Amino acid sequence: MKATNVTWHHGELAPDARERLLGHRPACLWLTGLSGSGKSTLARRIERKLVERSVNAYVLDGDNVRHGLNGDLGFSPEERVENVRRVGEVARLFVDAGTLVLAAFISPYAADRARVRALFEPDTFVEVHLSTPIEACEARDPKGLYQRARAGEIPSFTGISAPYEAPKSPEIRVDTSAAALDECAEEVIAWLVEHKVIPAPQ
Amino acid sequence: MKATNVTWHHGELAPDARERLLGHRPACLWLTGLSGSGKSTLARRIERKLVERSVNAYVLDGDNVRHGLNGDLGFSPEERVENVRRVGEVARLFVDAGTLVLAAFISPYAADRARVRALFEPDTFVEVHLSTPIEACEARDPKGLYQRARAGEIPSFTGISAPYEAPKSPEIRVDTSAAALDECAEEVIAWLVEHKVIPAPQ
Repeated sequence: MKATNVTWHHGELAPDARERLLGHRPACLWLTGLSGSGKSTLARRIERKLVERSVNAYVLDGDNVRHGLNGDLGFSPEERVENVRRVGEVARLFVDAGTLVLAAFISPYAADRARVRALFEPDTFVEVHLSTPIEACEARDPKGLYQRARAGEIPSFTGISAPYEAPKSPEIRVDTSAAALDECAEEVIAWLVEHKVIPAPQ
Repeated sequence: MKATNVTWHHGELAPDARERLLGHRPACLWLTGLSGSGKSTLARRIERKLVERSVNAYVLDGDNVRHGLNGDLGFSPEERVENVRRVGEVARLFVDAGTLVLAAFISPYAADRARVRALFEPDTFVEVHLSTPIEACEARDPKGLYQRARAGEIPSFTGISAPYEAPKSPEIRVDTSAAALDECAEEVIAWLVEHKVIPAPQ
């Protein structure tokens, strides 16, 4: 797949200027999984741990994107596609700016995720599949969405009345119902150290 | 004006965690002006000088936005509005991430710029008006656009066949035809130091 961002104008900066400034490589961690699987919670925990380690990490999720940039989009199949497309493009801008960006979106369609992956250099895109079983997600149901979906009040609810196409070979797979949140976060961080995205702790 | 971003979820981070990590306050510098007025060139020069001073600066301009995030938008009045709206929302995300973001877009309509300003806390939005006279912009004409606009080949060209509503009270006003590029960049940087957005040089 072609990484189209290599043709971008990088202004007057040396290619490694940002990496030297920030002390780590940029990357996009794309967290995909069912509603209630723990995407945003895990992303926020990883973000805190990374910022504490002086890594410039930042979470994009429904909270800061759905109400702003994508406030004009609903939940139809076409709007879900556009939602994921825009988030992918914004994540690419953050990576261009040197950030370790964590994008936490259901992103149920494999084709949409593949299009996002194609925006990045191979070693800057990390797909994290939240494989928490639907039974666990539904038992949590923090926003009462599964209950409403079962009652037929939410059309096209992922996992109930709309498909979730699980990633076949994500870089990382995490089940937040099988391990504590901190353990899950440390697992992802260990992967980033192992793959030399961020430095090992001093 | 209400800064709507104060209601955002900031995850598990202390409010000043990013500022401590990065060593400066976040801000959005919004560069507005005619085609050829020097917006992108000035933004890239400021970006380089700031990164050299260890400030995490990043430029959003037509180059990295029009071909990606806003690749679905043309130049009709409605699409220009949506272009500026999305850039404003992305700039807000960058400010939320602690970045000193420089947005360089013609953004000809005062109402659109006011909507963008309203997304930010008052002390994080800095409007920079590139007041380079149209004669100087047209004499430069780096992309041959004025020539084509005069020939009637580009409908609604800002300054020729579409309005440019100059800011009445921008925080900074710069004419890149009246001073050298470095001087213009230093003027903006001096403003940032004076207003305690970034630290004075050591």
